Amino acid sequence: MQHKTLGRRPGSPATREAILGAARKAFGAAGFERATIREIAQRAKVDPALVLHYFGSKDGLFSAAMALPIDPQQFAARILADGIEGAGVRLAHAFLALWEEPRLAGQVRGILRAAVSHESAAASLRAFIEGQVVGSVAGYLGEDARLRAELAGSHLVGLAFARYILRAEPLASAPLDEIVALVGPALQGYFSGAAQGGPQ
Amino acid sequence: MQHKTLGRRPGSPATREAILGAARKAFGAAGFERATIREIAQRAKVDPALVLHYFGSKDGLFSAAMALPIDPQQFAARILADGIEGAGVRLAHAFLALWEEPRLAGQVRGILRAAVSHESAAASLRAFIEGQVVGSVAGYLGEDARLRAELAGSHLVGLAFARYILRAEPLASAPLDEIVALVGPALQGYFSGAAQGGPQ
Repeated sequence: MQHKTLGRRPGSPATREAILGAARKAFGAAGFERATIREIAQRAKVDPALVLHYFGSKDGLFSAAMALPIDPQQFAARILADGIEGAGVRLAHAFLALWEEPRLAGQVRGILRAAVSHESAAASLRAFIEGQVVGSVAGYLGEDARLRAELAGSHLVGLAFARYILRAEPLASAPLDEIVALVGPALQGYFSGAAQGGPQ
Repeated sequence: MQHKTLGRRPGSPATREAILGAARKAFGAAGFERATIREIAQRAKVDPALVLHYFGSKDGLFSAAMALPIDPQQFAARILADGIEGAGVRLAHAFLALWEEPRLAGQVRGILRAAVSHESAAASLRAFIEGQVVGSVAGYLGEDARLRAELAGSHLVGLAFARYILRAEPLASAPLDEIVALVGPALQGYFSGAAQGGPQ
């Protein structure tokens, strides 16, 4: 236990977490291409070699830093376990609540930015969405809900882009509840349609 | 008229267009930050000073290069002039058709990429959306349709991101008509709600 007071030494979870925190800041601020291992190591007060020792490569560091701080299965359970009724509003609310939390917003924003500009980041986000996110929804609504789940998700991603990244008015300043009340029914259409047996 | 055969000389529309074409390629491939005036000038076979002479700055060049190749007023007229019925499906179809055209897709992709990573690009896209796009819709549906128009637009932007940039399956490979049939009703909800008198 005494080791913990020695601060950041190789192998300690605190060191790893410090590197991940520095990486999130760097990737979020500069994007994948412009952020450097050297700069991230400097922020975390460790040697660049240690960053590579832990994460193997810039890609590896990126994947670890950008792992979403939510568990898609738990998230889907919260939205869908009680049935489809009201799921659209619950989903709109839970998703927007993520973006209203500054630390999470910065992280998700970093992921989006990287996915738009860097193919390896897009590939890792794509795998996460196709596998875990859509897979969790399909577990509740059936296989034919995959396309509908992605369409609902695409609406949410575009909503976050317009409200939190682009900050287009009046959307950027609209109260959360007003947006939830409008977006909920659009999402609900995708879920209800799936429950009635797939596309058309 | 004979001047045209002299090729790219300062002041000719062909020179200007060659610079814009090179800029679109560079911004689309590398993003705003990494693209350079020098490289763009080289691609266009002109002197870098001429690029600055025409467009003033990298920001100015970016705005000119990223001006959307559609007129929002004409676009809104095509969707809404015949009334609200079916507008959701018409909008989904017209928007996706833009992305199915490789030259336009590259251009819009460059705009999105820049808006996510660069505040001056976000500001110019924001001004375009708040003013021209949403303004055109409000002209047909009334002022209280602004928020709903942005929500519909945010769905489309997220859809394009998921299908054409992230390429998440099954969305990326789904036939255009199947997507239009699913997305149309979600968009229609925003338009119909607006016609019935604004948010709840």
